[in-house]
Amino acid sequence: MPDPIKWDDGFLYLLDQRKIPFEITYVKCANCTDVAKAIEKMIVRGAPAIGIAAAYGVVLASEGGPREIQRGIERLSRTRPTAVNLFWALKKMENAVSSFLDKTTEDDWDAHVPKKLLKDKLLITALGIHEEERQIEKLIAFYGQSILFQNCRVLTHCNAGGLATGGIGTALGILKIAQKMGKEIQVYCDETRPLLQGARLSSWELWIEGLEVIVICDDMAAFLMKKGAVDLVIVGADRIALNGDTANKIGTYNLAVLCKYHDIPLYVAAPRSTIDIDLTDGEAIPIEERNPDEVRTFGGIKIFPDDISVWNPAFDVTPNGLISGIITEVGILKKPYEESIAKAMVASVNFKDIQRAGFE
Amino acid sequence: MPDPIKWDDGFLYLLDQRKIPFEITYVKCANCTDVAKAIEKMIVRGAPAIGIAAAYGVVLASEGGPREIQRGIERLSRTRPTAVNLFWALKKMENAVSSFLDKTTEDDWDAHVPKKLLKDKLLITALGIHEEERQIEKLIAFYGQSILFQNCRVLTHCNAGGLATGGIGTALGILKIAQKMGKEIQVYCDETRPLLQGARLSSWELWIEGLEVIVICDDMAAFLMKKGAVDLVIVGADRIALNGDTANKIGTYNLAVLCKYHDIPLYVAAPRSTIDIDLTDGEAIPIEERNPDEVRTFGGIKIFPDDISVWNPAFDVTPNGLISGIITEVGILKKPYEESIAKAMVASVNFKDIQRAGFE
Repeated sequence: MPDPIKWDDGFLYLLDQRKIPFEITYVKCANCTDVAKAIEKMIVRGAPAIGIAAAYGVVLASEGGPREIQRGIERLSRTRPTAVNLFWALKKMENAVSSFLDKTTEDDWDAHVPKKLLKDKLLITALGIHEEERQIEKLIAFYGQSILFQNCRVLTHCNAGGLATGGIGTALGILKIAQKMGKEIQVYCDETRPLLQGARLSSWELWIEGLEVIVICDDMAAFLMKKGAVDLVIVGADRIALNGDTANKIGTYNLAVLCKYHDIPLYVAAPRSTIDIDLTDGEAIPIEERNPDEVRTFGGIKIFPDDISVWNPAFDVTPNGLISGIITEVGILKKPYEESIAKAMVASVNFKDIQRAGFE
Repeated sequence: MPDPIKWDDGFLYLLDQRKIPFEITYVKCANCTDVAKAIEKMIVRGAPAIGIAAAYGVVLASEGGPREIQRGIERLSRTRPTAVNLFWALKKMENAVSSFLDKTTEDDWDAHVPKKLLKDKLLITALGIHEEERQIEKLIAFYGQSILFQNCRVLTHCNAGGLATGGIGTALGILKIAQKMGKEIQVYCDETRPLLQGARLSSWELWIEGLEVIVICDDMAAFLMKKGAVDLVIVGADRIALNGDTANKIGTYNLAVLCKYHDIPLYVAAPRSTIDIDLTDGEAIPIEERNPDEVRTFGGIKIFPDDISVWNPAFDVTPNGLISGIITEVGILKKPYEESIAKAMVASVNFKDIQRAGFE
C-alpha cells in the first residue's frame, strides 16, 4: 500500500486520497498553507494522519521564523475541528520549541536561535510522532486481534486503515494482523457516504492485503445484521471523551444503534492521542459540517439542484453505553470508561508485546 | 410534476426516471418487451407504477394474439421479483380476458375473438388500474395527513411519490396533501443508495410542491434522530405480508430499528394492492439482488475495482413489530396487523371521503 504521508528532502508529500484507488498521485506541500489546504480538501484524512501531516506542516512553517511557526499552528488548527489528534500533534510541536519561542521575537531570531536548530527540533518531533504512531498501531492490532476468531465476519465503516494513520491502521490494522496470524477474516465495508472512504479506501486497502472484502451501501448494514452475517463491528475514532463517548465518521452512531438492537459487539480502535483529556463527555465535541456539494455532486456530476438543501455533518457521536470496548496501545478498555480511560492515560506502553506476538 | 406513465395513441410512454431531475425525457414502448426492459432497467420504478406499466405492457402484447398475451404476462412477471403490485396487476389483466383465452388458440383467434375486442378489454382494464390508483392515493393521503401536525418534521426513504405510483404518491402524497391543508411540513429525504431515488426523485418532487426539503445521506439519519430533529418517518412499501411484515427499499429496516431506539413512529403508506394475500409473514418475500455495478459505479464513473465484491439487495423486510401503522385507502391499520389487514382486505373504499376533505 502506498504511504499516505512522506517527508522527503525538505518537502511533505501527501497521497491524494480523493483519487484512490484508481490514481496513485502525491501532492507536494512546500509550505504550511499547502498542508492546511490539503487537510481541508481531504487530500489527507483520518484522525492520526491529520495529526502527522499537521506536525510536518509546522516544520515547513519554521522556514519563516518563530512568528510563522505560531501563525502556522494557528492556521493548521483551523482546518478541521473534530479530530483531536490534530490539536494533540500541534500541541506537541509547539511544546518542542516553546522555550525558544518564549525568548525570541522575529527580529532577534537569527541572533538568539539558529534557524536550523529550531527546524531540526521540529522535524525530529514530527518524525517522532509519525514513527510512534506506526509502533502504536502494531500494539492496537496485537491487542485487537484477540477479539477476532477464525472465519470472523466483521463490518467496518469509513477508513480506519493505514491510509488514515500512517501505519497499518487502527480498525483495519487489527483485521490485517488477525489475517496474518492465520484467522480468515471476511470484511464488509460500508461505502460511507458522502465521500465513500469505505468503498474507495478500506475495501482496496484490505483487498491488497488478501482479505475477503464485500462492499455494501450504508443503508444495507441493518439487513445484513438481521441475516446474522455480522459477528462484530470495528471502527476508528476522531475524538474520544473521558467517559468513552466517541466521535467518528458520520454513520458510526447508526451502526452502534443497529449493533445494540441485534446484540452485536461494537469496538472502537484508536491511539490514546484520540482521547480528549479536556472533555468529560461527548456533548461538547465540535461536529464539522462540510460543503453540501459533497452530497449534491458526485465526481463533478450534479445529482440534484442547488436549490434543494443538504445537511452534511462529517461526524457523529456514539454514547459510551453502545461501545463494547476501546482498543488502544495499552490494551482493550472496558466499561466503566471513566475508570479504564483514566488508568489508560497514565499506563506505560509495552512495545515488547509486539515482538512477543512475532509480527515485528 | 411530469406524469411518469402516459398511454397515448396506442403506445406507452415512460418517464426515464434514471435521468430525473435534470432531464425530462420519455421512453416510447411499442411492445411488451420494451416495457419489460424498462421495468428491469428502472426507467419506471416504484411498486404501484411497475404494476401500471406492466398492465399497459399486456395491452401492447395483445397485438400479437392470445399466445403473445400469455407470453407477455410471463415475460413481465420475470422483470422484478419483490413488488407484489406487478403480479397483482398482471393477474387483473389476465382475469380480464381469461374467458377468451381459455376458448381460443392462436389459430382460431380471428375466427372466435375479434382482436380489437380483446385489446379494448385489456386497455380498459389497464386504464382502470391506473385511474383507480390515482383515486386511491388521494384517500391514502387523506387518512395519512391526520398523523401530521403543524411544523411536523418527517423523514422519508427512497421515493414513494407520484413518480413511483402514477398519482400524487403514497408516503409523499400524504406530505403534499398535509401541506396543502395548511400544515407546514419539513421533510428530510434519505438519499437512498445506490440509485439515489431520495436525493434525485423525492427531494425534487416535494420541492416542486413547495415543501421544505433537506437531503441527507443514509448514514446520517441516526444522528438526525438523536438530535431530536425527526418527529416521524413515513415510507412506502413493495410487498406487505398478512401479518404486516413489509418489504420496501433497502434501508427501510435500518430506519425502523433507529425509530424503535429513538421512540419515533414509523408509518408505511401503501395501497391494498401491495398486500400479498398469499403470504402469512415476510420471511418468504423474494428479495431482488441487483447488479453490483449499481454500487461500484456512479454516473459511469467507477468507484472501486471489479475484483472487489459487492452485496446489493434492492429491498429489505421490516418486521411488523417495528411498524406504527399502515396507511391504506381504507384507513390506518394498526396492530395486531393479522386482524386489521384481514378486515381491510374486505372493506369498502369510501371515495366520498376525498370530496369531504375538499381536495378533489
